[in-house]
Amino acid sequence: MKKEFIYNFKVYYEDTDAGGVVYYANYLKFLERARSEAIYSIGFSNLDLKRTNDVIIVVKSCNINYIRPAKFEDKLSVHSSIISISKASFKMNQIIIRQEEKITEAEVVLVAINSSGKPTKLPEELLKKFNS
Amino acid sequence: MKKEFIYNFKVYYEDTDAGGVVYYANYLKFLERARSEAIYSIGFSNLDLKRTNDVIIVVKSCNINYIRPAKFEDKLSVHSSIISISKASFKMNQIIIRQEEKITEAEVVLVAINSSGKPTKLPEELLKKFNS
Amino acid sequence: MKKEFIYNFKVYYEDTDAGGVVYYANYLKFLERARSEAIYSIGFSNLDLKRTNDVIIVVKSCNINYIRPAKFEDKLSVHSSIISISKASFKMNQIIIRQEEKITEAEVVLVAINSSGKPTKLPEELLKKFNS
Amino acid sequence: MKKEFIYNFKVYYEDTDAGGVVYYANYLKFLERARSEAIYSIGFSNLDLKRTNDVIIVVKSCNINYIRPAKFEDKLSVHSSIISISKASFKMNQIIIRQEEKITEAEVVLVAINSSGKPTKLPEELLKKFNS
Repeated sequence: MKKEFIYNFKVYYEDTDAGGVVYYANYLKFLERARSEAIYSIGFSNLDLKRTNDVIIVVKSCNINYIRPAKFEDKLSVHSSIISISKASFKMNQIIIRQEEKITEAEVVLVAINSSGKPTKLPEELLKKFNS
Repeated sequence: MKKEFIYNFKVYYEDTDAGGVVYYANYLKFLERARSEAIYSIGFSNLDLKRTNDVIIVVKSCNINYIRPAKFEDKLSVHSSIISISKASFKMNQIIIRQEEKITEAEVVLVAINSSGKPTKLPEELLKKFNS
Repeated sequence: MKKEFIYNFKVYYEDTDAGGVVYYANYLKFLERARSEAIYSIGFSNLDLKRTNDVIIVVKSCNINYIRPAKFEDKLSVHSSIISISKASFKMNQIIIRQEEKITEAEVVLVAINSSGKPTKLPEELLKKFNS
Repeated sequence: MKKEFIYNFKVYYEDTDAGGVVYYANYLKFLERARSEAIYSIGFSNLDLKRTNDVIIVVKSCNINYIRPAKFEDKLSVHSSIISISKASFKMNQIIIRQEEKITEAEVVLVAINSSGKPTKLPEELLKKFNS
């Protein structure tokens, strides 16, 4: 549960809006990229989970606080950690940071569904990796 | 406080992802469009607020629950209402609906800042309209 | 071939970038929305074409000229017309206009593929409608 | 003129659409990221150019051919080179590649404007770097 995943990225024009800062919906893209990279880093991929296990991980809820605005050309990182986990879902804390400064903080609940959209169990091996 | 703003829209290709449903970050775009339309419907605009009052309304937090997936070509509506209001901020409840079915529900806190990024008061006339 | 399809829309925060104008990739979203609405207006839909005819219409090429920048809160319209058509593809001219002013102009080539990604014919009824 | 800039990236959920492939407008985001990285790689940045030289580089036209679809989780690279250059504009060829396979090819014309939106000259040092 202590594992922290770090994903580094840059802010491009596409991410900003006429306010000169990152558009509020686009932070959720950064969070999702960071979660995908976390999945890759422990040897899985969204495509493999779907093909091999008929498991799709979807967002059930997202509670995000916008603390400071991120700006064009900023170099940011997402720090993600799992704060609770069950057989079919898990909760992550995801913080976006610019140098030492906290930009946003989110709690994201993710659940496993199958290709028919029904709740299903997370694969054992994934749970093991998350818990290790 | 009872006023409800309704914004109708359609789901286009741009809104969906490889899962065949609306990408989770894009619901926040729909919510923002609905808030902009609410502002227009009471005789204001984001540009006017900035030019005339040096007020920019930004999202402080967004707590969104994904209840059912919206799909390509869906006709949806956002039902928005103000649930609390102070001199410098307000909280909205925003529900996205497909026919009778609730798709997502969000609580969004918005605050007024000036062009230097400092907290400021919401214009009196806007508060009046919100409270009427 | 003379038929012109008109789609009206507004520019929201999501469409703009830190330059204060519409982000260059987002004009292609407007063009696609306009094409979808054109399809709806003649009694078809992308989902129906796929389900009934196993036809997906995809963009083969897009040649877009950016003439003037569109801005936040602009009210724009896309004027689309078919300039040539064959059994399996068609070319559209799509102009984005703000009042009398031309914002962008694009030539877009669209082709029909089936769900395996192979080129296929456009449905007869669709060709008839396009030619009427 | 021979210099080639290479930018590597991955396809995330945000980039795809309900067709299961990358949404056609999103390729333009990849091209823009690649151009920004090219600018960084020769010691400049969009923010510096604006602050120091009052120069903003904007897209005048984009002619893009979609050759093969890119898919979720693909690892792609953009190969960009300048094919012609004048005092106030330049043309780039940008190819998106998956392993050996060409996904898209685009010709993009970029022009320098100042903060009032008027055409201006590209900074000498930038031209030198482009020509070296």
